[in-house]
Amino acid sequence: MGKDKKKSKESRTPFRDALRAGPGTQLADIDPRSTPGFSGDKADGQEALADLAEPVSDLQERLFAEATAGGERSVLLVVQGMDTSGKGGIMRHVVGAVDPQGVDITSFKAPTAEERKHPFLWRIRNALPTAGRIGVFDRSHYEDVLIVRVHDLVPRAQWARRYGQITTFEKGLVDKGTTVIKVMLHISKEEQKERLTERLDRPDKHWKFNPTDIDERGHWEDYQEAYQAVIDRTSTDAAPWYVVPADRKWFARLAVMQLLKEHLEELDPQWPKADFDVAAEQKRLKKS
Amino acid sequence: MGKDKKKSKESRTPFRDALRAGPGTQLADIDPRSTPGFSGDKADGQEALADLAEPVSDLQERLFAEATAGGERSVLLVVQGMDTSGKGGIMRHVVGAVDPQGVDITSFKAPTAEERKHPFLWRIRNALPTAGRIGVFDRSHYEDVLIVRVHDLVPRAQWARRYGQITTFEKGLVDKGTTVIKVMLHISKEEQKERLTERLDRPDKHWKFNPTDIDERGHWEDYQEAYQAVIDRTSTDAAPWYVVPADRKWFARLAVMQLLKEHLEELDPQWPKADFDVAAEQKRLKKS
Repeated sequence: MGKDKKKSKESRTPFRDALRAGPGTQLADIDPRSTPGFSGDKADGQEALADLAEPVSDLQERLFAEATAGGERSVLLVVQGMDTSGKGGIMRHVVGAVDPQGVDITSFKAPTAEERKHPFLWRIRNALPTAGRIGVFDRSHYEDVLIVRVHDLVPRAQWARRYGQITTFEKGLVDKGTTVIKVMLHISKEEQKERLTERLDRPDKHWKFNPTDIDERGHWEDYQEAYQAVIDRTSTDAAPWYVVPADRKWFARLAVMQLLKEHLEELDPQWPKADFDVAAEQKRLKKS
Repeated sequence: MGKDKKKSKESRTPFRDALRAGPGTQLADIDPRSTPGFSGDKADGQEALADLAEPVSDLQERLFAEATAGGERSVLLVVQGMDTSGKGGIMRHVVGAVDPQGVDITSFKAPTAEERKHPFLWRIRNALPTAGRIGVFDRSHYEDVLIVRVHDLVPRAQWARRYGQITTFEKGLVDKGTTVIKVMLHISKEEQKERLTERLDRPDKHWKFNPTDIDERGHWEDYQEAYQAVIDRTSTDAAPWYVVPADRKWFARLAVMQLLKEHLEELDPQWPKADFDVAAEQKRLKKS
């Protein structure tokens, strides 16, 4: 199968355009099994994902190198989604395709006693990527307007203020050189049932299951509403949301990898110029 | 090419036995181009490395899962070696083959002002893997008896005490359930020259080069002596050193991956048993 034939068969519009949440975006209207921006099938998608590993690794290394010469740019990938939406698979198969030396994954659980003493963005600020690095959040400050809102873990007036606090915070990050990529993995309630069923049917998956996962399903509509509010109120020009249909794992992984690539390409990081006399060092090395 | 034929062609003794530094080990006697424990060529080695990704990932996931049910075991991989010995390649191609969610890489640079206020093991203790995780040190506390010794950065009496402090410290780690795998990437002075030459010849590698790398070459023999002392004094039963010939990058990567596998196999982590009533949850899920 020729590469050229392949490329012409799949049409790939930039995923940034295909997946970006705009003012009118309604989650309920987005089919979790759809593959916006990609017309290929699963095998095509898996091949496309594998093909992206090298260019994304190269771009990541350039970003990393740039920072060794004083560059201050970084990338923050925020991954949100319901239980079983595939966040772990994104970490493993997308983030895992990049040199681990340049990546920091932070997995946010229920806040600890220490974290609860501070404003909700405190632990987020402590986990931001430094220059040249790709930070990845598995869950994030958005839990503070998702699970917190659904279960009234703080008074309404308090969580209601957070949307504005978040957009201000993210704007500040972007202004200081961090590209923020926010991904919502959008699955259907039926697909979640299948994935939870698999976790219960397979003893090697039991450790991933928690009975509260089923309780949470009872709040499905509340969560959709909370996600819709997140998209309505925090998908800004500085840091837009990308809604990634996630009933097909292969598509979600391809989409996030492609989003990473498109954002890194826009940054277009360059190998830094030598800050030493190359010819002189070559001469010195020869004699050493 | 049949898998069986392949397997019989390569003889692979456990790398732990082939590479372990014992009482009589002399670095000067180990050929950096040799491939102890492996009789295949580069293509065989690359194939063998690729074949290890899945079993090692599986073992790592079991270790991670075990910890979610109270398991306290972890793994610490310490990687040491001269400049250009391939530490970065180990991080990228060996550590990078494992799920990044279960791995923490710490790269130790010259200590910061804050770190210098504390005993040399302070920053090491702060970077140890927690239960279920694989911690990886790119350089380590051994720099405190390597570069520090070669350049007399602290008085001799002070660094001389550190060998004993290190073995006591490591024994404590092992007693508390951390498997410590210490790898020395052993390259020749000639191979280093080639690799530095490449860094100078290629503009996309300039950022990896530092003129002090050539100054350090002037201390090659002192470093070999310091490494020999490390092996003599800190290769213990609890935490032995493995000397990995590293002039062939493919072999060094295969060897470290294989060492990781052999140690994880010995741990033999098991999927935790469900701490909930599986049948009851299946019934509840069906109705949800």
